[in-house]
Amino acid sequence: MKDFAADPAFEAASVPVVEWPLCHVRLQNDARYCWLILLPRVDAAVELSDLDPAQRAGLMEEIVRAGEVVTTMAAAEGCPVDKINTAALGNVTSQLHVHVVGRRRDDPLWPDPVWGRPGAISCAPDQLQARKEIIVRR
Amino acid sequence: MKDFAADPAFEAASVPVVEWPLCHVRLQNDARYCWLILLPRVDAAVELSDLDPAQRAGLMEEIVRAGEVVTTMAAAEGCPVDKINTAALGNVTSQLHVHVVGRRRDDPLWPDPVWGRPGAISCAPDQLQARKEIIVRR
Repeated sequence: MKDFAADPAFEAASVPVVEWPLCHVRLQNDARYCWLILLPRVDAAVELSDLDPAQRAGLMEEIVRAGEVVTTMAAAEGCPVDKINTAALGNVTSQLHVHVVGRRRDDPLWPDPVWGRPGAISCAPDQLQARKEIIVRR
Repeated sequence: MKDFAADPAFEAASVPVVEWPLCHVRLQNDARYCWLILLPRVDAAVELSDLDPAQRAGLMEEIVRAGEVVTTMAAAEGCPVDKINTAALGNVTSQLHVHVVGRRRDDPLWPDPVWGRPGAISCAPDQLQARKEIIVRR
């Protein structure tokens, strides 16, 4: 684990926030969505099968924790989540990572997935800070 | 569990194949992709947090098993998988389900996600049967 580093490609659209027991936790910088990215700190992992079963169970629990965070975050902004979208894709950046995204029936892309679509709106500094604090508190 | 039934909406694009310890397993009927759908047989589950931790760990292991199946299936068709895409979305059909999709760099939608996009091509009967047999054997 000591050699773990997030792929620099994640820096374009997300910021690092905190380390959970298994995952490096990032916040997607998009005001439209409460959206976390979890990167297991396991060298060279690309597929879920590259984790061992204990790591996979730990990842699942951190996915649920991330879902609680995005739910809290969205509620704090007055926009409660209708559905959580969770996905491990990796077609563009292969390093294993899991997206956990709060979705609303009135969001710009509903019911389509959010990935591979343009239109991100960077958070204002105070919004980004407020979101980061919610993650750190959980 | 005895009351479990898959939402009829799944019938439009997928076929039931087998029951694993936790999940009802369906095959998406799309010749372009080797694609399984896992539905935990847990009444009224919508989010991953509606499962208990043991069920979630079990789901994770069945997700990995589904990844092995789609990898085997794609290899048998001479089109090895480059990346597995795994997602629990539920924006259209809320009953908890997880997609496990084999992707190739030369597939029609790469690197975009497959959901919410038209163009499905139904499998020929022999292809559908061969795919089902691979699932049942795992």
